[in-house]
Amino acid sequence: MSALSRRLKAATVFVVASAAATVAALGPETGFAAEADARAVTQAAKALRDRALVSEESYRLLEDLTTEVGPRFAGTAGDRAGVEWSKKTLESLGFTNIRTPEVLVPRWIRGEASADVLSPSPQQFVTLAIGGSIGTSDEGLVAPIVMVEDIDALRALPEGAVKGKIVYFNERMMRTQDGSGYAKAVAKRTVGPSIAASLGAVGVVIRSVGTSTNRIAHTGTLSYNVSAPRIPAVAISNPDANNLERIVQRSQAHSHDSAEPSNSDKPSDSGDVVMRLRVTARDLPQVRSANVIGEIPGTDLADEIVLIGGHLDSWDPAVGAQDDGAGVAIAIAAAKLAAEMTPKPRRTIRVVLFANEEFGLSGAAAYPADEGDENVDRHAFAMEADLGDGPVWKLAANVPERHWPLVKSIHNIVKDLGVALGENTARGGADIGPLRQRGVPVIAPALDATTYFDVHHTVNDTLEQVNPEHLKQSTAVFAVATYLAAMAEGPIERLPIDPKAR
Amino acid sequence: MSALSRRLKAATVFVVASAAATVAALGPETGFAAEADARAVTQAAKALRDRALVSEESYRLLEDLTTEVGPRFAGTAGDRAGVEWSKKTLESLGFTNIRTPEVLVPRWIRGEASADVLSPSPQQFVTLAIGGSIGTSDEGLVAPIVMVEDIDALRALPEGAVKGKIVYFNERMMRTQDGSGYAKAVAKRTVGPSIAASLGAVGVVIRSVGTSTNRIAHTGTLSYNVSAPRIPAVAISNPDANNLERIVQRSQAHSHDSAEPSNSDKPSDSGDVVMRLRVTARDLPQVRSANVIGEIPGTDLADEIVLIGGHLDSWDPAVGAQDDGAGVAIAIAAAKLAAEMTPKPRRTIRVVLFANEEFGLSGAAAYPADEGDENVDRHAFAMEADLGDGPVWKLAANVPERHWPLVKSIHNIVKDLGVALGENTARGGADIGPLRQRGVPVIAPALDATTYFDVHHTVNDTLEQVNPEHLKQSTAVFAVATYLAAMAEGPIERLPIDPKAR
Repeated sequence: MSALSRRLKAATVFVVASAAATVAALGPETGFAAEADARAVTQAAKALRDRALVSEESYRLLEDLTTEVGPRFAGTAGDRAGVEWSKKTLESLGFTNIRTPEVLVPRWIRGEASADVLSPSPQQFVTLAIGGSIGTSDEGLVAPIVMVEDIDALRALPEGAVKGKIVYFNERMMRTQDGSGYAKAVAKRTVGPSIAASLGAVGVVIRSVGTSTNRIAHTGTLSYNVSAPRIPAVAISNPDANNLERIVQRSQAHSHDSAEPSNSDKPSDSGDVVMRLRVTARDLPQVRSANVIGEIPGTDLADEIVLIGGHLDSWDPAVGAQDDGAGVAIAIAAAKLAAEMTPKPRRTIRVVLFANEEFGLSGAAAYPADEGDENVDRHAFAMEADLGDGPVWKLAANVPERHWPLVKSIHNIVKDLGVALGENTARGGADIGPLRQRGVPVIAPALDATTYFDVHHTVNDTLEQVNPEHLKQSTAVFAVATYLAAMAEGPIERLPIDPKAR
Repeated sequence: MSALSRRLKAATVFVVASAAATVAALGPETGFAAEADARAVTQAAKALRDRALVSEESYRLLEDLTTEVGPRFAGTAGDRAGVEWSKKTLESLGFTNIRTPEVLVPRWIRGEASADVLSPSPQQFVTLAIGGSIGTSDEGLVAPIVMVEDIDALRALPEGAVKGKIVYFNERMMRTQDGSGYAKAVAKRTVGPSIAASLGAVGVVIRSVGTSTNRIAHTGTLSYNVSAPRIPAVAISNPDANNLERIVQRSQAHSHDSAEPSNSDKPSDSGDVVMRLRVTARDLPQVRSANVIGEIPGTDLADEIVLIGGHLDSWDPAVGAQDDGAGVAIAIAAAKLAAEMTPKPRRTIRVVLFANEEFGLSGAAAYPADEGDENVDRHAFAMEADLGDGPVWKLAANVPERHWPLVKSIHNIVKDLGVALGENTARGGADIGPLRQRGVPVIAPALDATTYFDVHHTVNDTLEQVNPEHLKQSTAVFAVATYLAAMAEGPIERLPIDPKAR
């Protein structure tokens, strides 16, 4: 099969020899085989949906994970405890072929972070270091701040405007159902620090990339550019950012009111707002973590894999109930519930809990490398839950056109749960991106992100913020998608291979 | 007048010589003088209400205070800055006779606090020291915990059950409109530590006395009993408390499942949940703070005072927008708006911003002592706003029966704002308690506390949590109450003097 598979890769068609014998004709409306089979599968999918909607399984898993393990930041004891918990849990639920291939992950120590206004009047803000930030000296870094809206506004400043100063990015994140507000606002965090550094800034403070009006700061990674000096970078909470904005505006108004002539070549002058930035973060050498894999073997198409995943790691300030405990719980529960249906899933359902999504996508990169081309080619479909508890509001996908009927058949089962039929250009989750680039078709139930960024990457990512009813609905949709993907008529075509696909 | 006043005190009747000449008969239905006067006053009160409902004054004051001053914990630089801001603000608004009588306040340094579960699996909780807590050693205090519901449950344990252990109080606070849930749940914080210490405990952890499901801890004072050892005491956030409760329950279940015989004389056994408590708090010597007083002189009854107050201090973790920036803003704005009406207020309207309510009611105790009996007797009515932004949902009071028509006349003006007529047994705010005990009648617009304890005494007590429309409504009610109290027909009777009145 592997030789065949490699030969067929150019044609982006994937054929499993064992599959052909058992099936008759492709039901063009359903994506399934003969009409009688299709009816049985449809009945089973409806029963699965209804069962998942009342099942406590995913919530129970999430409660276990957050209570017995807690935070699971890459490379920490909690991360290792998460791997052990996952192994034990998959075993207890009857998964087989459980393994934990090693993944090397970076090890960053957050330490403490503060961003205090020293003048015009002292204020202390709720602050978190941005993931990967370097530390400051013990005394911290004292400098005037220059408030800008975003990276474009920073670039538009006169040369030297931020030299020796702390750049404060004030851009607000929009609340959106599809999470696109995050994608737009996150650049100030990921590349803002190095852009500011390249312009001479000595530190960066950002308004949290999140939608909460609570006084909690939002972390996440930055990406230092090798050609710029590394400068410390922190995020302050939205209420603190509002306060800082007012402080700067009042300071500017005051300096414009004053008798001194205004300095016209300093349009970005934020009056005399001086901050002290203090970060005790540091890097340690790489350490070992692991992806966790468990399977429920298929029947006649057992060589083919339907992958459902989430990422096991979380950020360190909280237990990661929404990010991505919910995804872990959905993936395990959906796989288990799907596997219990009759007719039995034809393809093997594989749960993959990826290591270190948050701080560099280590597990996502390691997984296809570990599997090798041959085994990657055995992946019929992949899906990931990594946007909180849901509910699923849209069923999108990224599949060869031939398999769109499968997506429609999934939608047909779950549409009464408030699920729209989405587009066929979805990216799926970050951890399955490398698989998609390698041609694996993606099914992408879209989780409602409207309130997700209220808690994502903050201390507030706790079990209390998870809506059990949302989790049930999401589990039901993922379970139905998993089941029908495992039953879909083959051969499964593949996506064009595109290592640069976003 | 002073000699007369002292002589009349026993009769609980207060007479101001200058008052009698200008008024005719008491309007029995309104509490005001002659019908024509009453009509003019009623018209003015309605106009005042309508004007206050659209006035940005109180919100603007609150924004100024929280932006330009920030946290105002007793004895800190922020506290002193708050006094300066208040003087400046009252001056700019046309108040007169502004003064800042010195008040000695305790000085407690919060430092850092942590309450970490070490076993069965490590978890770190969002923690604040309870105000006044002693510190631990640098290494902290490691001990098993005993979870109890409340003080009664603690007392019901067998002798020695908490010896050498950390007591964890798990009682939840009820969300109530009148704030009574707080009064019920707060005992574990105020007296719980010393009761636990008297039973041999070495530390206390409490579930935050607050209603937030956010991961923020709630501070507030404790009161050490001189006869018990002082032990450190901290509060953890509600989500962390939920997690700790689950951890203890699972640990208990596990130890009951295990082969070992259960230890029947340890009914409170929390399995093997071991915590490390670490607090770096410490006390410093007393320092100076100040009450801030400003007045708008009355006309013919200028010797009599209608006091409207709030407290200027806040807890240290936030800017105290709700507690009690809102009260400060309401008091100043209500006084100013009332003073601008025609007919002019007959009595002097005095704004008092009390020092250090939070950490021992220092300003409340100092105020009547500073004033002396003679001047206390000049207080016709007192009211305080100290339960957040509102809205006012009930108008209560504690006045001699003769003045109930005044309360009804206030209610008549504001009832359309959703204000019920309350009881005549109100306590009013904590800062005016000593005045009430000395016979000063109290008018008590009841602020809606339903969501107040989501942010009260937490990092989350920010401007963002204040509803501008609620603040306007509250300002309107307090303004009307202030105005009509300043216009009420005298002589004003006094309450019975009762130094023990709660």
